[in-house]
Amino acid sequence: MFAPVYLDHNATTPLHPEVLEAMLPYLREQYGNASSRHEYGRAARRAVDEARQQVAAATGAHATEVVFTSGGSESNNLFLKGAAASLRPGLLAVSAVEHPCIARPAEQLARQGWEVATLAVDGEGRVEQGAYAELLARRPALVSVMLANNETGVLQDVVALAQAARPTGAWFHSDAVQVLGKLELDFRALNGAGVHALSVSSHKIGGPKGAAALVLDKRVELQPLIAGGGQERNLRSGTENVPAIVGFGAACALAARNVKENRRRLADLRQQLEAGLHHQGARIFGAGAERLPNTSYFAFPGVDGETLVGYLDRAGFAVASGAACSSANPEPSRVLMAMGVAPELARGAVRVSLGATSTAAQIEEFLGVLKGTLERLTSLTAMAS
Amino acid sequence: MFAPVYLDHNATTPLHPEVLEAMLPYLREQYGNASSRHEYGRAARRAVDEARQQVAAATGAHATEVVFTSGGSESNNLFLKGAAASLRPGLLAVSAVEHPCIARPAEQLARQGWEVATLAVDGEGRVEQGAYAELLARRPALVSVMLANNETGVLQDVVALAQAARPTGAWFHSDAVQVLGKLELDFRALNGAGVHALSVSSHKIGGPKGAAALVLDKRVELQPLIAGGGQERNLRSGTENVPAIVGFGAACALAARNVKENRRRLADLRQQLEAGLHHQGARIFGAGAERLPNTSYFAFPGVDGETLVGYLDRAGFAVASGAACSSANPEPSRVLMAMGVAPELARGAVRVSLGATSTAAQIEEFLGVLKGTLERLTSLTAMAS
Repeated sequence: MFAPVYLDHNATTPLHPEVLEAMLPYLREQYGNASSRHEYGRAARRAVDEARQQVAAATGAHATEVVFTSGGSESNNLFLKGAAASLRPGLLAVSAVEHPCIARPAEQLARQGWEVATLAVDGEGRVEQGAYAELLARRPALVSVMLANNETGVLQDVVALAQAARPTGAWFHSDAVQVLGKLELDFRALNGAGVHALSVSSHKIGGPKGAAALVLDKRVELQPLIAGGGQERNLRSGTENVPAIVGFGAACALAARNVKENRRRLADLRQQLEAGLHHQGARIFGAGAERLPNTSYFAFPGVDGETLVGYLDRAGFAVASGAACSSANPEPSRVLMAMGVAPELARGAVRVSLGATSTAAQIEEFLGVLKGTLERLTSLTAMAS
Repeated sequence: MFAPVYLDHNATTPLHPEVLEAMLPYLREQYGNASSRHEYGRAARRAVDEARQQVAAATGAHATEVVFTSGGSESNNLFLKGAAASLRPGLLAVSAVEHPCIARPAEQLARQGWEVATLAVDGEGRVEQGAYAELLARRPALVSVMLANNETGVLQDVVALAQAARPTGAWFHSDAVQVLGKLELDFRALNGAGVHALSVSSHKIGGPKGAAALVLDKRVELQPLIAGGGQERNLRSGTENVPAIVGFGAACALAARNVKENRRRLADLRQQLEAGLHHQGARIFGAGAERLPNTSYFAFPGVDGETLVGYLDRAGFAVASGAACSSANPEPSRVLMAMGVAPELARGAVRVSLGATSTAAQIEEFLGVLKGTLERLTSLTAMAS
């Protein structure tokens, strides 16, 4: 069987075998609709309730603050559009390095009368304090700044940003999709600092695709994106995806149990990786900032990222040339542009994101193949010029 | 193992074992993000493409007309809100018997400046022709009338309704969630008559929860409900739920293969059921109209539906007292109210919906238990009075 080495865990993760085991009864005999008032329905409801407790425990939230959705993109859209629909159009601020599922809905709101401020970031990808202070003086109604960037892994100081925003009365949201399972997440503490909502997703932490949550301070009024039968306290209608929600809960339980050890283990593996990358002449983006322990985003001057990813793919290594979510796009990464990286260098960007299945042996092997590939690409370039 | 007889297939269906088999590789080794540009990603993309073909074949559509979503509620919300956002606020018409995931978004649009006309239905639950003709004279911009009702199973003459709407230039949508797998569905023919979009869902046809589609005439401009990475031709962003989409495709392939035989078999079983119900004094709602072959919605005068469903549940039969999608709601069914059914009788409503696992022996057993339960309830009522 063909099984390339998977080094793209920020795009999606393998479903953990224990998670699949937890899901299987709900893919077989326990197929009820959680809203049905008979034994099949009650069994499904109990499973959803238990998963809600597990997600709450892994995010430091109360179960009643967990709103299940179909994915991180939905959670982000639900917060931005749902909160905006409950307010008079005003000022919305998002960072320049947000995922497209924040940036695009912000553009949609701009067409509906909202003023959208894009918060500039510094060379390491962190929101610039001066620009942020200026924004706050203009009293935004909504602010969304991610906890960690999907491309670079760079962390924002969301606690400080939220605390600063508090006096404005803005609702503050943070996309935590890349943080869950990699660092400890404590909504209670974040909420105390002024964060009103977090987006988290199942398939980034060894859970199934098709489940996610918006963890939401109940003082925030949201209009549902998907209205109907009234599920999820009227915030997200539609038949609950019971097997996926059960899997999300199981993945959260595993993540909560393993996060500390995982963090150390991933940091060690990344150190091994980046030592090798430096040795081969890589420029590592955001390396001067605090980052997720699993993510390396780098480029080799003069080497095209797409080309390198293609060579590595054929050599049996699955890495990303940027955010995996959008289709073929020859433009250099928006995130790197916002960080002021030169377009030529940004076009070389390659992302390695480690995860539960990553090993030191894989990284050693990867570095060896990378070395050979770079030598080959450099000699090809030399021949062509 | 406790396994009550499941007679609630309009709420959800057991996952077909062949469908689970088709899904398992994507819950195990083929876990890629379909947007990733490496072998895992390409394998996921191929699977999504194949499923799109299967959904298209089962709905008589072209693959490029299939937009995957997370569920029927999302498909309905996407059409209504997505089309509305591309138009100037105008007149929107929905039938009085639509599922809440049409009725509620229509209410949201009403708060955004749309005028919402609710199309009255006759005593059998069919849109009244006079009211419809009056509506069309007022030139609606959007019309949504379901193909079959989830409670009664009553079919609307959507071809005639769409043909009549054509000269107005309205976009015409139909919720076909309850039709797929039970009757043949031909989007090409419906589109020829003037239907521009259909909603269909996986978990109603032996597929997994978490996948559905909006089948969409490409001339209709839609704003995405979930914006972001640009998946599904920018109409529905978010990491594709590959296992669920694969399962939906497999379920569509089975449905397309079996729909004719299934229709006959279900009609025979329902005839057996309704002969027994009539014999026991039931009133069957919508019995004078064309209905889905699998659905019986009935009441016994003087017998409370919730109570009867509770007794049947304890006796090992899973049936519904109404639409399963909303939580505890003591109000009589909106659908029956729209049909002019007296509230006392409507409070007695019980729905039996048959499916792939239903057998003649189950129905015989059900009728026997129902008889005993009714005798018991009647004697209790007599004692109490």
